Amino acid sequence: MLSMQEKAAVMIEMLPYIQKFVGKTAVIKYGGNAMINNDFKRSVIQDIVLMKFIGIRPVVVHGGGPEITALLKQFGKESTFVSGLRVTDAETVAAAEMVLVGKINTEIVSLINRQGAKAVGLNGKDANLLVAAKHLAQVHEEGLIKSVDIGFVGDVVKVNPDIIWTLLDQGYIPVIAPIGGGADGESYNINADYVAAEIAAALQAEKLLLLTDVEGIYRDCGDKDSFISTLSFTEAQRMIKDGRIEGGMVPKVEACIRALAGGAVKAHIIDGRQPHSLLLEIFTDSGIGTEVVKGGQ
Amino acid sequence: MLSMQEKAAVMIEMLPYIQKFVGKTAVIKYGGNAMINNDFKRSVIQDIVLMKFIGIRPVVVHGGGPEITALLKQFGKESTFVSGLRVTDAETVAAAEMVLVGKINTEIVSLINRQGAKAVGLNGKDANLLVAAKHLAQVHEEGLIKSVDIGFVGDVVKVNPDIIWTLLDQGYIPVIAPIGGGADGESYNINADYVAAEIAAALQAEKLLLLTDVEGIYRDCGDKDSFISTLSFTEAQRMIKDGRIEGGMVPKVEACIRALAGGAVKAHIIDGRQPHSLLLEIFTDSGIGTEVVKGGQ
Amino acid sequence: MLSMQEKAAVMIEMLPYIQKFVGKTAVIKYGGNAMINNDFKRSVIQDIVLMKFIGIRPVVVHGGGPEITALLKQFGKESTFVSGLRVTDAETVAAAEMVLVGKINTEIVSLINRQGAKAVGLNGKDANLLVAAKHLAQVHEEGLIKSVDIGFVGDVVKVNPDIIWTLLDQGYIPVIAPIGGGADGESYNINADYVAAEIAAALQAEKLLLLTDVEGIYRDCGDKDSFISTLSFTEAQRMIKDGRIEGGMVPKVEACIRALAGGAVKAHIIDGRQPHSLLLEIFTDSGIGTEVVKGGQ
Amino acid sequence: MLSMQEKAAVMIEMLPYIQKFVGKTAVIKYGGNAMINNDFKRSVIQDIVLMKFIGIRPVVVHGGGPEITALLKQFGKESTFVSGLRVTDAETVAAAEMVLVGKINTEIVSLINRQGAKAVGLNGKDANLLVAAKHLAQVHEEGLIKSVDIGFVGDVVKVNPDIIWTLLDQGYIPVIAPIGGGADGESYNINADYVAAEIAAALQAEKLLLLTDVEGIYRDCGDKDSFISTLSFTEAQRMIKDGRIEGGMVPKVEACIRALAGGAVKAHIIDGRQPHSLLLEIFTDSGIGTEVVKGGQ
Amino acid sequence: MLSMQEKAAVMIEMLPYIQKFVGKTAVIKYGGNAMINNDFKRSVIQDIVLMKFIGIRPVVVHGGGPEITALLKQFGKESTFVSGLRVTDAETVAAAEMVLVGKINTEIVSLINRQGAKAVGLNGKDANLLVAAKHLAQVHEEGLIKSVDIGFVGDVVKVNPDIIWTLLDQGYIPVIAPIGGGADGESYNINADYVAAEIAAALQAEKLLLLTDVEGIYRDCGDKDSFISTLSFTEAQRMIKDGRIEGGMVPKVEACIRALAGGAVKAHIIDGRQPHSLLLEIFTDSGIGTEVVKGGQ
Amino acid sequence: MLSMQEKAAVMIEMLPYIQKFVGKTAVIKYGGNAMINNDFKRSVIQDIVLMKFIGIRPVVVHGGGPEITALLKQFGKESTFVSGLRVTDAETVAAAEMVLVGKINTEIVSLINRQGAKAVGLNGKDANLLVAAKHLAQVHEEGLIKSVDIGFVGDVVKVNPDIIWTLLDQGYIPVIAPIGGGADGESYNINADYVAAEIAAALQAEKLLLLTDVEGIYRDCGDKDSFISTLSFTEAQRMIKDGRIEGGMVPKVEACIRALAGGAVKAHIIDGRQPHSLLLEIFTDSGIGTEVVKGGQ
Repeated sequence: MLSMQEKAAVMIEMLPYIQKFVGKTAVIKYGGNAMINNDFKRSVIQDIVLMKFIGIRPVVVHGGGPEITALLKQFGKESTFVSGLRVTDAETVAAAEMVLVGKINTEIVSLINRQGAKAVGLNGKDANLLVAAKHLAQVHEEGLIKSVDIGFVGDVVKVNPDIIWTLLDQGYIPVIAPIGGGADGESYNINADYVAAEIAAALQAEKLLLLTDVEGIYRDCGDKDSFISTLSFTEAQRMIKDGRIEGGMVPKVEACIRALAGGAVKAHIIDGRQPHSLLLEIFTDSGIGTEVVKGGQ
Repeated sequence: MLSMQEKAAVMIEMLPYIQKFVGKTAVIKYGGNAMINNDFKRSVIQDIVLMKFIGIRPVVVHGGGPEITALLKQFGKESTFVSGLRVTDAETVAAAEMVLVGKINTEIVSLINRQGAKAVGLNGKDANLLVAAKHLAQVHEEGLIKSVDIGFVGDVVKVNPDIIWTLLDQGYIPVIAPIGGGADGESYNINADYVAAEIAAALQAEKLLLLTDVEGIYRDCGDKDSFISTLSFTEAQRMIKDGRIEGGMVPKVEACIRALAGGAVKAHIIDGRQPHSLLLEIFTDSGIGTEVVKGGQ
Repeated sequence: MLSMQEKAAVMIEMLPYIQKFVGKTAVIKYGGNAMINNDFKRSVIQDIVLMKFIGIRPVVVHGGGPEITALLKQFGKESTFVSGLRVTDAETVAAAEMVLVGKINTEIVSLINRQGAKAVGLNGKDANLLVAAKHLAQVHEEGLIKSVDIGFVGDVVKVNPDIIWTLLDQGYIPVIAPIGGGADGESYNINADYVAAEIAAALQAEKLLLLTDVEGIYRDCGDKDSFISTLSFTEAQRMIKDGRIEGGMVPKVEACIRALAGGAVKAHIIDGRQPHSLLLEIFTDSGIGTEVVKGGQ
Repeated sequence: MLSMQEKAAVMIEMLPYIQKFVGKTAVIKYGGNAMINNDFKRSVIQDIVLMKFIGIRPVVVHGGGPEITALLKQFGKESTFVSGLRVTDAETVAAAEMVLVGKINTEIVSLINRQGAKAVGLNGKDANLLVAAKHLAQVHEEGLIKSVDIGFVGDVVKVNPDIIWTLLDQGYIPVIAPIGGGADGESYNINADYVAAEIAAALQAEKLLLLTDVEGIYRDCGDKDSFISTLSFTEAQRMIKDGRIEGGMVPKVEACIRALAGGAVKAHIIDGRQPHSLLLEIFTDSGIGTEVVKGGQ
Repeated sequence: MLSMQEKAAVMIEMLPYIQKFVGKTAVIKYGGNAMINNDFKRSVIQDIVLMKFIGIRPVVVHGGGPEITALLKQFGKESTFVSGLRVTDAETVAAAEMVLVGKINTEIVSLINRQGAKAVGLNGKDANLLVAAKHLAQVHEEGLIKSVDIGFVGDVVKVNPDIIWTLLDQGYIPVIAPIGGGADGESYNINADYVAAEIAAALQAEKLLLLTDVEGIYRDCGDKDSFISTLSFTEAQRMIKDGRIEGGMVPKVEACIRALAGGAVKAHIIDGRQPHSLLLEIFTDSGIGTEVVKGGQ
Repeated sequence: MLSMQEKAAVMIEMLPYIQKFVGKTAVIKYGGNAMINNDFKRSVIQDIVLMKFIGIRPVVVHGGGPEITALLKQFGKESTFVSGLRVTDAETVAAAEMVLVGKINTEIVSLINRQGAKAVGLNGKDANLLVAAKHLAQVHEEGLIKSVDIGFVGDVVKVNPDIIWTLLDQGYIPVIAPIGGGADGESYNINADYVAAEIAAALQAEKLLLLTDVEGIYRDCGDKDSFISTLSFTEAQRMIKDGRIEGGMVPKVEACIRALAGGAVKAHIIDGRQPHSLLLEIFTDSGIGTEVVKGGQ
């Protein structure tokens, strides 16, 4: 058990970070194992609520891929993927919307409320928060790049953040499902990392915090000692171009780049499997993930 | 085609009602055929948006029974009913929540937004709007009334209307799915008429407007001439007690009674199949449905 | 009698106009027969009050020529006119001020209040609303244009609209008599069309609505089929220059031009003898008068 | 010429009164010779403006008897009086309204504005400020008191002071003509002392200041040494009852009594012929008129 | 060094206390060794600043006995004491005021500001914060209790907390020297524990935190195991009456009783020599001092 | 004794000045004999309070040289001076701080409060109001100018006026002791004239009023008739450069120049020995001191 003086030391270590971040907005992308494992889930929700009580203004964006797959399976529907993106017909996007908005979102809202904060669920249709348009998948075929229509997968065309400001100013925690509304009222499923990035940009957020299932970024994938604590905007762009960032990490780093380019102050890739990783990244001197910062050369 | 003077006459007829209702809150229960038929749907949405533009503050509560049944069927699940209430196991309430919150609610929000107003979807978990507890069905068995546990069907225990005020004050139209949150975070499906009544009471609303599939209330069911335009609170209670109101009309009249008892000013039962019935009830001298008013003897 | 569906159609036709004009300011010049005939009077007042209840912010400017003449006659005083302008000595302007401020203005205020809105009478001296200077009449004499001093007829030198904003923000309808105050405290009688135009410009009003005794503007005076629904700013200027607009219509079209040049959005010349012409011009698709809009070539 | 130290002494004498009255409301009845003589007029206006600049909130109510008589004479109309009240037919009240609202009121507003403050003219119809009903004259006939209908002479039935608060809060000086509006929109001429008293009561004013043509009240009319500086509410009532106050002073003392009974703090009867009597009464230790205070026995 | 999970555990332990105390006011009496030892001083200041950053509203009251004595010695003046209270002539109170206001207060203000918060120094004369009257010492003489005049030692007669609210609402930390102002402008030195208690009562503070040189209260002075974590109001009164609390602890417990009686929620006696005792008392489950709570029997 | 009309004349003379200065900020440097002589003191305090009651917003900066010297003498410490500036070691600045903040400041605050206004004492450390750095004395030695370290004598490096605005907006009179805080928390004694000038500049004050022990500035020191009522900025600079202003008047005129250059509107040098000189300078046509105004050539 910790001594009183050890406890005090932790509190004092938090002091400059509290001073720096009180009143600021932090967008948290909540996904991956941190949404499935019950202990991780509890830890993330506690972190969000503690941030809120201390005076930071959290905005949560969540994903939900595995649960969409599960519902489609219940409907006896198999998904196909193009360039890693699910081909999304009308039935599929309706299932995605039901799961994201009517199941995952309401559950997160409920968990936050039970910890004593007040959350309100949103999706991109509420107050036209996320205006979407069809995303075309890029396929490499015979040496060419072709655009392929994969249905109701969307890009964010515009963010109308007024409803978020209204809720933040009244002390609520907005929890956002990554569904966008098209010009004719149709629904689009959008990658949650990108939604979080666009919202962080629209809010000029102090932080974008992406919870992932990895520790962060390594300069050399095979070398545990090559962990990168701080990555510059320029270097992040170069690493993607050079193929040094691969697979599932690409959209995450792209989201960080997009958020910073759009006006967010800092972006973090954090291991959601480590208990209380949000608090530790924000309130300790060393931090625990990879942060992407403006500038670089 | 109408002459200019006929048009002017309609506008002038509206004058005293606009004067009376501007700035007031009206809770609209949107359900039945008005949610299924596309023409009715368009007409109801236009009415809500016109009310909003004129300066009334609409709050929409919607139902969704048929679509819940349809989804359960897709899951290969048959519903059983006790005293007209669906027996609702965990899987059933999860399906109800997905349909109500993730399909019907988002669609209504989207339709309103496309007419130029700004809607925001809510359910009872958002900011703890509707605190629910298990509803026990009343079954008549061998001359006795027995309470039967039919699962996650809920009663409204408490309304926390702050989030509604926040949205109304910022010019949004709240659209509410009738899902309540229990003490342990579980979901309850609640009758939408009752939800609308409880919210009308909590807001001390000027009006509760229940859209139904009938013209209103008749003193004598077989006699078209016995239509009741205005029914007093006391007489409404007596008609229910005397069994003169039956079947699906009972919960609607009970909802009117509950709303008035809790502080709403007036309640209306309106035929949702008649185009623009909301506007006509509010803004014409004759009105078109049955209104339930305080008092009586 | 209209059917319910016909009534609903009128209301739905109003929808886009309400959406567009709620919260906007409309300056109404009230004069001519609409001030004398009791039915017209009632109709105009109802229109103003309906506009107010719907959420438009009306500002009324009134004239009063015939009543000034009548009072002067009572005093045994004959008016002479130069270029259509009354020669206005000290006694005449005092009579004009008494009639405009102490009779016509108080009557309009009273009529509006009795319809349930709250009006407050103003004249140009209140809070220095209209700073005036002597207007010199232009007389054509022997091929030359000469300026002639015709006494206390004024031009608007400056508008101080603060008092109007104060009243509008508190929900009052300002009713303004066209009397201006000179540098030494003397009173000036000012053409009410011009006063309305200057106020519309100072308020950057959405609309200037001039009630007249004609239907609107015709391209060819003798041809009923040449009625102009929409006239561009540039064409209006050209028609005046070319003499295609004549007589009493000149100051009205000049007022429209002045209002648009000063920042008002649109100006309308409307037949005050047609019942509810204000409502019909604002809230129907076809409108009924001539509107003057920015631009043109 | 005064020495610097004498000037400083005057300022320091003002100190406690400024401290006491800043932010408070003072209702000034402006009438009598102070409205006719140009020097008196200038002095009163300066006093009102100084009060305003120092931070007191003046509300001006004015009379206008002599000018009404003059206009009626121009119309060739002779006035008759019952119990000192002018018999007021429709033509007479119209003339009174024109003179009070369209001549005297606008002149006072203009004079105040030219001293650098901002005045706004009101009459009882503006925003329903003064709701009036017919006043019946009391006539002693054959030992009986009979009520006589003398036309459009009114009593104040209700004060709606909102428009006064709106103007005061925005820094304007309201200047009020004693015309009230009846239930059917008709005009009533009301005694200005009573209007001032009713308004002082409605505003819970700190002071009612009645400018008169006498020095104040004497205990013994013939004895200059019996001047009363301070009179209690109770004694004022007794003196009227005992007939020790007579003639034109009766309505003034009654107005003081009415104001105090309705919630005003203090009432003053001041000689409007003495230059700057308002300032001297308020800001000097001795004062110069008769003050009526609550209490007494 | 602590592991990341140990750090996270401390933060999570803080969660319920932050939730409870954010936005609440805490009055801290800063005195004793915590004012002399530089490490203690740094620790207390950090604690106050962390409380502030987290959202608690701290108000600091300080003492200064030893430094007053030191200055008097510099003046060649020896202090005498009656019943533990310094006999305070005019020169002594002037010295006390100079030291408290011009030395200790400015130093605390400066230390807080250098940690990134914004402090403003006050004493009881500022905005009449502490109205004081002469305190009479109670002396036991020949079996009787006699009141003795010991000069400018004061009691708090009235607290005018407006200036504290003004500063708190603007985000400042008020730092208060225990000097009160008498009716004739004279200065009084007041016991800082009592000042803190009176201010906690006037502010209806959530907490009164008294920093002392002892660990807290023991039920049995000789027995380290008899430490009292929570003491009820009633028991605290009884212990003083029974003489079970003695010496310097008496005024501290009396201050706690006074604060609770006046409306403060809880009072704490804390060891100022233990680093970060303020944080540990507030933000840990066990706490470290003795808290006095309402109620008891 | 003055007649009523003479009193009224004084009040009317004040009118334009009240109109001009209400709501404006005036920084008063209070020093010299006006701080020592009890009659002068009373007069200055009354003037400040009257200004406040009339609606001007006074900010007081005070000096205190003689009392610092007196305390140092009590400590048996002799002061040495370089170029007229006291050599200020740590003990000296501590004494200065105690006297200025803990004696003179609290006394002025107390005197103002007893006149019915509400004063709050500040020094440069409060909310970092005055950030200071070491001032180096300029010594002429062998034809060269050398900078000499004279200890804790400071220059104002930065003014953070937020705390002054907070107090003014809540109706308090800030009273400021000329102590500044250095980067490491050390105290600096700063010339009060310069402090007043810097604060007048930071507040963009309407007036800087320097109370002195002379009547004002003479063009020719020996000639009483050469008194300067108004001095331009440019001429003031030239007179200093030309050596026509000498001795103690130099820092005062430099303070005026600094205040105007920094944005204050006007600066006044006033004889604090003349009773009510502040009022007379502000509220009479002639004024009594020397004013320094922008411009000149």
